[in-house]
Amino acid sequence: MERAAGLKRVALSPREASDLEMTAVGALSPLTGFLCQRDYRSVIKEMRLDCGLVWALPVTLAVSEEQAAAIREGEEVALVDQSERLLGILEVAEKYRYDKETEVRACYGTTDPAHHGVAKVLEQGGVYLGGEVWLLDRPEPQFPAHHLDPAETRRAFADRGWKKVVGFQTRNPVHRAHEYIQKCALEICDGLLLHPLVGETKSDDIPADVRMQAYRVILEHYYPTDRTMLAVFPAAMRYAGPREAVWHAICRKNYGCTHFIVGRDHAGVGSYYGTYDAQRIFDRFGPGELGITPLCFEHTFFCRACGNMASSKTCPHGKENHVALSGTKVREMLYSGVVPPPEFSRPEVAQVLIDGLKVHAKA
Amino acid sequence: MERAAGLKRVALSPREASDLEMTAVGALSPLTGFLCQRDYRSVIKEMRLDCGLVWALPVTLAVSEEQAAAIREGEEVALVDQSERLLGILEVAEKYRYDKETEVRACYGTTDPAHHGVAKVLEQGGVYLGGEVWLLDRPEPQFPAHHLDPAETRRAFADRGWKKVVGFQTRNPVHRAHEYIQKCALEICDGLLLHPLVGETKSDDIPADVRMQAYRVILEHYYPTDRTMLAVFPAAMRYAGPREAVWHAICRKNYGCTHFIVGRDHAGVGSYYGTYDAQRIFDRFGPGELGITPLCFEHTFFCRACGNMASSKTCPHGKENHVALSGTKVREMLYSGVVPPPEFSRPEVAQVLIDGLKVHAKA
Repeated sequence: MERAAGLKRVALSPREASDLEMTAVGALSPLTGFLCQRDYRSVIKEMRLDCGLVWALPVTLAVSEEQAAAIREGEEVALVDQSERLLGILEVAEKYRYDKETEVRACYGTTDPAHHGVAKVLEQGGVYLGGEVWLLDRPEPQFPAHHLDPAETRRAFADRGWKKVVGFQTRNPVHRAHEYIQKCALEICDGLLLHPLVGETKSDDIPADVRMQAYRVILEHYYPTDRTMLAVFPAAMRYAGPREAVWHAICRKNYGCTHFIVGRDHAGVGSYYGTYDAQRIFDRFGPGELGITPLCFEHTFFCRACGNMASSKTCPHGKENHVALSGTKVREMLYSGVVPPPEFSRPEVAQVLIDGLKVHAKA
Repeated sequence: MERAAGLKRVALSPREASDLEMTAVGALSPLTGFLCQRDYRSVIKEMRLDCGLVWALPVTLAVSEEQAAAIREGEEVALVDQSERLLGILEVAEKYRYDKETEVRACYGTTDPAHHGVAKVLEQGGVYLGGEVWLLDRPEPQFPAHHLDPAETRRAFADRGWKKVVGFQTRNPVHRAHEYIQKCALEICDGLLLHPLVGETKSDDIPADVRMQAYRVILEHYYPTDRTMLAVFPAAMRYAGPREAVWHAICRKNYGCTHFIVGRDHAGVGSYYGTYDAQRIFDRFGPGELGITPLCFEHTFFCRACGNMASSKTCPHGKENHVALSGTKVREMLYSGVVPPPEFSRPEVAQVLIDGLKVHAKA
C-alpha cells in the first residue's frame, strides 16, 4: 500500500472494480489479471483463452489514449475506485488498442448503443491495460453475511456433504417460476446455491437490497435450510446474453457448483437475443470442457388444469389455464402496491417487494 | 427353424425367455447370448464383464444336472417356452456349475428364500449353459402398439429431435409423486420415455394391462404428446435393488436414453435394501462409464403449505402438511373402489385402476 501511494492512478469503473475483486478471490479463475492482447483476441474470436480454455467474455481495463500515453509497459499502476479509494495494483504487461465494434459485435451480438452493455464499451477509453493484479483493499461488502468467496462456498459445500450443487444466477426476485426450476434442479442435486448478482445492474432492475430481503424471506418460508445457501455474486451485469450465460456458469464452477441453471433469455436484455440462444451456446463445448453441467429450462408458469407449476414441456393444456404475467406487468403491480396472485408470487415475497420498493421510491 | 426341430430342447423360464428376446433385439447390448463362466464370475464379483464393461446382473440359462449331462459343449440346442413353443437357438459354448449362495448374496444381498428373486435362483437348475443365441420366433407382444425395440425407440427419438431423453422404469401405476419426478427430469431433457416393465413380476404387483391403460390415461390428460413416448420394457423383475437399478439404466441406454430416473428403493422389495442403496451404487462408476446419467430422486409428496409436490430436499414444512399414503394403503383403497385424494393420484388414473382391478378380481 505504501508502494501504491507513489504510483500513477487508474480509476476503475464499477464493472472493472468488481472484475478486480472477483479475479483476486478466484471467482474468475484461471484469470489472474486483466486480459493481455493474445487472450483478449482469442476470447473475442473463439470464446477461449489463448491456451484453449473456454472463456466467454473479456475481462479488461480500459483507459483513455492520454492516460495510456503516460503509462509504460512493465510499470505498476494503482487501481482506485470512482471516489479515488485505493483498491489494488496492476502490473502493466501490455497496453493495446482494440476495436470496439469488433468486441461488441462478437460479445453482445449487436452494436446498438441502446444496449446497456454495448453502451458501457462504447463510452470507455480506447486502450486496454493488461497484466496481473493484486487486491489491496476490498470494497466494503454490501451484504457481509452473504459475501462468500469461492473458497468459502466450496468449503461450506464440503462441510455439508454436498457433492452436486446447483447454482442459480439471478438479478430478479424469486417468483414461483424461479422457485419451480430451482427446486426441479435441487431434486436431482444435494444443494442449491442461490447466487444473486449484486454488482452494477441497469437502473430499472429491482435494487439488490430489496431483492436480498425477498430472497431471505422465500428461503425462510419455502426452502429447507440444510439444502440451500444464499450468497452474493459480486459481478456487474453485462447483459451479454449467451456469452454471459457461459461466463456465469464458469464463475459458478469456481464457487464450487457442479450444475448451473440456464433459463430462457439468460442475461438477456430487450430483444437482442433469441429466447434459447443462451442455452444453445453450451452445445459448442465438449462434455467436461466447462467443468459444470448446464441445466436448461423453458418458460414456466402455474397451470390451473395441472394444479401445479409446469412448462410447455410438461403441460399439455391451453394458455387459458396458465397464470402468466409479464415482467413489466408484475413490476407495475408491485410498484403500485398490488400483490400478484399466489400462483405467481409467494405472498410473503410480494409483500417484501412492495414494502421495499415503496422505501426506494421515497428515498 | 427346420434345423431347430431336430435339436434337443431346453425350456426357458419366463425370465430366461424375456432375456432371450431382449438380447436378440439389442436391449442387453453388448451381450449376444447367455453368459459364459468368465463373464458370469466377473459380473457376480465385480459388476463388470470380463472385458471391463459395467454389467450388473447375470443373464444366464439354467438347466438341471440331468439335462446338462445330455448336452455337449459345441452343440446347438433349441430354446422353447413353457408351452414347448420354439423361441430360438443357443450354441452351447460352455456348461458350468455355479454356486447359488454366492450368486444370490452378491446380486440380491441376501440368501433369504422369501425374496422373490432369490427364490427364482434357488429353484432353478444347478448348471448354466452359456453361448450365443438366435431368436427365431418372437413371443406375441402383449401391447403391440407399445412394443418398441431399441432400434425403434432410438429412431423415434432422432425423428423427434430429442437429444436428451430421460427413461422412467416402473412396475407401478404413475401417481402424482412419479409424475412429479418425471416432470422434474423432463424439464431438463427434451423427452420422456415412460418405459414400464411388463415382463414377469410378483403376483401382488398391479397387472400390466391395467397399468398400461392407466399410463395411457395420464399421458393423455397431463403430458404433452410431443414430449413423451410410452413403450414397454419386456424384462422380468428380479427385485435385485441396487444392481437391478444399474442394469435397468444400462438397458435404457440401449433404448437411446441419455438420462435415467432412480427413485428411492429402486427395484427393491420388502426391506432387503436401504432406501438409497440403489442410488449410491452409481457412485462406483466413473463419469461416462455407464453412458447414461442417473437422476436420483428422494421420496416426494404433495405439501399443503407449499401448495405443490416436493421432497424433503425442497420442502421445509412438517409432516402434518404432507399428503402421504403407503403403497399398501393405496392398493387397499383402489381394490375397494375408493378414489385416493387428488394430491396423491390424478382422478382419471384412479378410476382406471379401480375399474381395471375390479375386472381382474372377477376374472
